[in-house]
Amino acid sequence: MFFEGSEKKAEVIIKAPLLSLLDDIDDDFWKALVQCCNAQILSSIRNHDCKAFLLSESSLFVWHDRFLILTCGNTRLVHSVEYFIQQIGMDKIQQVIYQRKNEYFAHAQPSSFGDDIKLLAQYVSGKAYRFGELDSHHNYIFHQDNSSFKAESDDKTYEFLAYQISQQASEKLTTVGLKAEEIRQFLQLDQLIGDFMLDDFVFDPFGYSVNAIKGKQYLTIHVTPQADSSYVSVESNINLRALAAKFLTILTPKSFDLLSFNDFDFINLTEEFIPASYVSKSRVTEQLSNNYTVGFANYILPQQAFAPAAVLDIAGENHAL
Amino acid sequence: MFFEGSEKKAEVIIKAPLLSLLDDIDDDFWKALVQCCNAQILSSIRNHDCKAFLLSESSLFVWHDRFLILTCGNTRLVHSVEYFIQQIGMDKIQQVIYQRKNEYFAHAQPSSFGDDIKLLAQYVSGKAYRFGELDSHHNYIFHQDNSSFKAESDDKTYEFLAYQISQQASEKLTTVGLKAEEIRQFLQLDQLIGDFMLDDFVFDPFGYSVNAIKGKQYLTIHVTPQADSSYVSVESNINLRALAAKFLTILTPKSFDLLSFNDFDFINLTEEFIPASYVSKSRVTEQLSNNYTVGFANYILPQQAFAPAAVLDIAGENHAL
Repeated sequence: MFFEGSEKKAEVIIKAPLLSLLDDIDDDFWKALVQCCNAQILSSIRNHDCKAFLLSESSLFVWHDRFLILTCGNTRLVHSVEYFIQQIGMDKIQQVIYQRKNEYFAHAQPSSFGDDIKLLAQYVSGKAYRFGELDSHHNYIFHQDNSSFKAESDDKTYEFLAYQISQQASEKLTTVGLKAEEIRQFLQLDQLIGDFMLDDFVFDPFGYSVNAIKGKQYLTIHVTPQADSSYVSVESNINLRALAAKFLTILTPKSFDLLSFNDFDFINLTEEFIPASYVSKSRVTEQLSNNYTVGFANYILPQQAFAPAAVLDIAGENHAL
Repeated sequence: MFFEGSEKKAEVIIKAPLLSLLDDIDDDFWKALVQCCNAQILSSIRNHDCKAFLLSESSLFVWHDRFLILTCGNTRLVHSVEYFIQQIGMDKIQQVIYQRKNEYFAHAQPSSFGDDIKLLAQYVSGKAYRFGELDSHHNYIFHQDNSSFKAESDDKTYEFLAYQISQQASEKLTTVGLKAEEIRQFLQLDQLIGDFMLDDFVFDPFGYSVNAIKGKQYLTIHVTPQADSSYVSVESNINLRALAAKFLTILTPKSFDLLSFNDFDFINLTEEFIPASYVSKSRVTEQLSNNYTVGFANYILPQQAFAPAAVLDIAGENHAL
């Protein structure tokens, strides 16, 4: 059984004094927005600064001045962004950022990044970049290009994306009947973010999502544990330096990506905590005109031993093919 | 401008005494077969043992007992295989092998490997494998599974696939007005296969294909030189040991794959000639039930420096997106 874990991601920042997304917009709006990409809201948690929705495909975070949505699987996230723009109006929006990772099963997606940004370009004048090589892991980023918005230097985001986790971790996380508490323990969330409010969900037959918030801080983890197409993403506005090192130990992925927005120490960050067993395959950095400095790095675990080939199911309905 | 260089490949072996593909089948048949996947024959060369057709998308080689076809771009090669099966009949066929590499632009392909082998499975009982990780370079191989065919141990094939060639090589190979002779010289074909009969073609605006034959031996090179999606494939039934080392020096790709059928010394082969600057990312070996032992290895050139992001064209018709 295969599932596309790789997320699309959108962040929209509004002209805050005009409207508070947290106080002035009710849940029905977010429910409708999420449904536009064929996802559903499963549950939510909130504090004074942030509301976090756990979705059937990933997560939605809402703050007073912005929202962030990540969706995986075969969702077409750009339709949710379009809904927001149509309902709220571009005159109240100061920044739209739309991002897409390379997928495991690009041929099974309902649209390409190019299709998505052609749709966005009907509403938003923007620029688009690719971070990483076309034949390897990469991230596409589209952002609104308007002189009125410049990101604050403390507006930081981190992504840690693990591919092909160890057989041991994959087996543990695909155990039948595994409970959320056991997964929290396996991921050592108590030690790592013990003071955050948590909301998590174990999917059937596999898969795990957790949203964590503390004031304006958020952290979200999505686990697609299936062997061959395993994928674990950690996204946060807290510095993932210590956390990513811990997750590398727990998951031992064959490959992982690091992405940062406005971590000006990204180069040293990557040097400092990554075990010497990993080798850097690709490194990209770019300062966008919206004042986000984006860093991307892909690492691999060199393989010496020869593995057997993967046997494929010809007759079955198999997204992997 | 982007072009999908990655090839699909099919080899079909017939029950030789019943028919000689080289002597009993005329060019109109091959023309029709090639048209089934929307490619055209550009030219051909032949000797007593082999006829090599240069195609608008890659190459077709015909021997007395088998043919081998490689097509790139958005061709749907499986339709050519289906045509052969329908025209010649499975009773005269002893082995069908169908292979597909991961594509740069999988979303732009008319079909997936899964679609292709579901079609083939209507005619051929077979097995399918994946060599290499799903999130990285990989090759899908489908082969007929029949007890009557066992490959001879001297029935060897080599593939050397270079991705992201050096800027210098890409610029040279995208020079306006570049002639075939200059490309042959750049690739040092005189030194490498000086005693082969050659047939080559320079595509407009870029791209180069060459077929080379000598007795039953063949070698074919296809060059997609465009920066970002550059791809150079070398396929041959002669040992690529020395040649691949030379091509690495000429092209300095950021990543390359080696694939062999029945090179029982594949592990040592890969150790011996590959510069220490390259790191092995994936290694797979498997003995198929048709008696081909297949080896696959993917290598990367570690990157220390940070590169700028690639700027994308939002409005343009851009296959890369």
